[in-house]
Amino acid sequence: MTPVLDLVGIFVFALSGALQGVRKRLDVVGIAVLAFFTAVGGGIVRDLFIGVQPAALRDTAYLLVPVVATVIAFFWHPQVERAMPAVLVFDAAGLGLFCAVGTAKALHYGLAPMHAVFLGVCTAVGGGVIRDVLSGEKPTLLYDRELYAVPAMLGSTVMVALHALDVRGFVATLSSAVLAFAFRILAVRFRWRAPLAKGVGKAR
Amino acid sequence: MTPVLDLVGIFVFALSGALQGVRKRLDVVGIAVLAFFTAVGGGIVRDLFIGVQPAALRDTAYLLVPVVATVIAFFWHPQVERAMPAVLVFDAAGLGLFCAVGTAKALHYGLAPMHAVFLGVCTAVGGGVIRDVLSGEKPTLLYDRELYAVPAMLGSTVMVALHALDVRGFVATLSSAVLAFAFRILAVRFRWRAPLAKGVGKAR
Amino acid sequence: MTPVLDLVGIFVFALSGALQGVRKRLDVVGIAVLAFFTAVGGGIVRDLFIGVQPAALRDTAYLLVPVVATVIAFFWHPQVERAMPAVLVFDAAGLGLFCAVGTAKALHYGLAPMHAVFLGVCTAVGGGVIRDVLSGEKPTLLYDRELYAVPAMLGSTVMVALHALDVRGFVATLSSAVLAFAFRILAVRFRWRAPLAKGVGKAR
Repeated sequence: MTPVLDLVGIFVFALSGALQGVRKRLDVVGIAVLAFFTAVGGGIVRDLFIGVQPAALRDTAYLLVPVVATVIAFFWHPQVERAMPAVLVFDAAGLGLFCAVGTAKALHYGLAPMHAVFLGVCTAVGGGVIRDVLSGEKPTLLYDRELYAVPAMLGSTVMVALHALDVRGFVATLSSAVLAFAFRILAVRFRWRAPLAKGVGKAR
Repeated sequence: MTPVLDLVGIFVFALSGALQGVRKRLDVVGIAVLAFFTAVGGGIVRDLFIGVQPAALRDTAYLLVPVVATVIAFFWHPQVERAMPAVLVFDAAGLGLFCAVGTAKALHYGLAPMHAVFLGVCTAVGGGVIRDVLSGEKPTLLYDRELYAVPAMLGSTVMVALHALDVRGFVATLSSAVLAFAFRILAVRFRWRAPLAKGVGKAR
Repeated sequence: MTPVLDLVGIFVFALSGALQGVRKRLDVVGIAVLAFFTAVGGGIVRDLFIGVQPAALRDTAYLLVPVVATVIAFFWHPQVERAMPAVLVFDAAGLGLFCAVGTAKALHYGLAPMHAVFLGVCTAVGGGVIRDVLSGEKPTLLYDRELYAVPAMLGSTVMVALHALDVRGFVATLSSAVLAFAFRILAVRFRWRAPLAKGVGKAR
């Protein structure tokens, strides 16, 4: 059984992918592809790196939830766009949850702490990067200066620390996820920005 | 031994990749890279998702056939372009074959029906998506409204249904492939189109 | 232990990725992502194709070295840019080393000679392709006509030939790497170019 929280994360990410598809005037196939890979692309990358079959290919919900998100975005995108501030909050929740769950899975398979953090961040941000590459855009993660990978890194690091202290399972996941979520919300609220290198002209 | 039909599919896909490389004025290395990944990229994605070593790395023909396609496109691209209507028919044949073969492989490795359909479609359309991403373009699959993934989905679904009815092997593969092929040809002939979401302005 | 030579190759590739990130005005997260995937992306692709867990997830140095390169490029990119001719030489050294090491690993896992050459070239050039795709650019490998994949192919082929003659280990790696390196340096020095197909108009 896929836990409910996990499905919520997947649904929100799928919705954000499907919405980007609608905005870029993709057809229904393209919308579904973006919905799917935004939602589970990060987890697929994590699982390929760990060396296990991607969870998305073991659980029917991972295919069905993106389909539901596609249908919703296809028919009711104006309503969803109006609800975007709420979507942003859910997206932050998904970010927190995915970094915690991804780190836990990496630790479970015996990866070293630093690599577990790396895979936790990959799980949380990988889907968005794949979404942007598939839409023919430079991934926003790399240049938009929003703190997005950084909260994921915080959550993953806390997860690894709790694991080292033998705090595991639901408590560890929830604490790490909530911390990453809170950091992300604060970063959006106060417009914290990732630094740029100094002394560079316009982008080439 | 790679069956002859499989090689025909690979050759046609490789040729379409190589031609795109020529049109975009890639050098000979770029033409070969596009030929290779267009032809076997979908199968590589399928095999990585299943968790087996990609067939392309077990069989010499999978490397040699794209090289042949590269040479042909490099020296005789005007002639090949003139034969494009024929190439379209072969491409539809490749699409049918790849979705059937990909689904069969996924079922063979014990994946659930819905995931087998998903992997069949990946096998059939994945190479074209990789080709477009590597050429620095938005994948045509996502926006051009042609029915391309949909015939593959039909073929894969039929394959799964036949498998459930214990119809397997050559008969199942050929029936599924022919159905997907026929649907694809009809879709091209009658200009069937995948729907767009309503009420969206110009692409952003 | 990661051999020193390997780390030098990773450092140089990471630096080239980080510099591209600085030039394209990515934020610090984007610079680090490019540094990492430029350095180890080719090896990751090779390992996924072989079917083993990517070496980058087993060795802490593979994560730390790109971080160091990120810091250097972030703060001292003007100095590094001025040292670019030297970087070109190091990059050629990395190219030689990576194709030799990649081929050796593929042979070690029992791949056929032609596939080992293919994976050696993937190891050497894959990171740069991923770097360009992630920066939202057409991979320079595919169109800039520089001989880059070709020296890697030479090095990998020599490695396979030496392996067949039972020359292995350090001697084989170094000979293959030096040959690829020398070919690359000569290609840069004398502006050798990969051919374009004839009779094609402007890029579409």
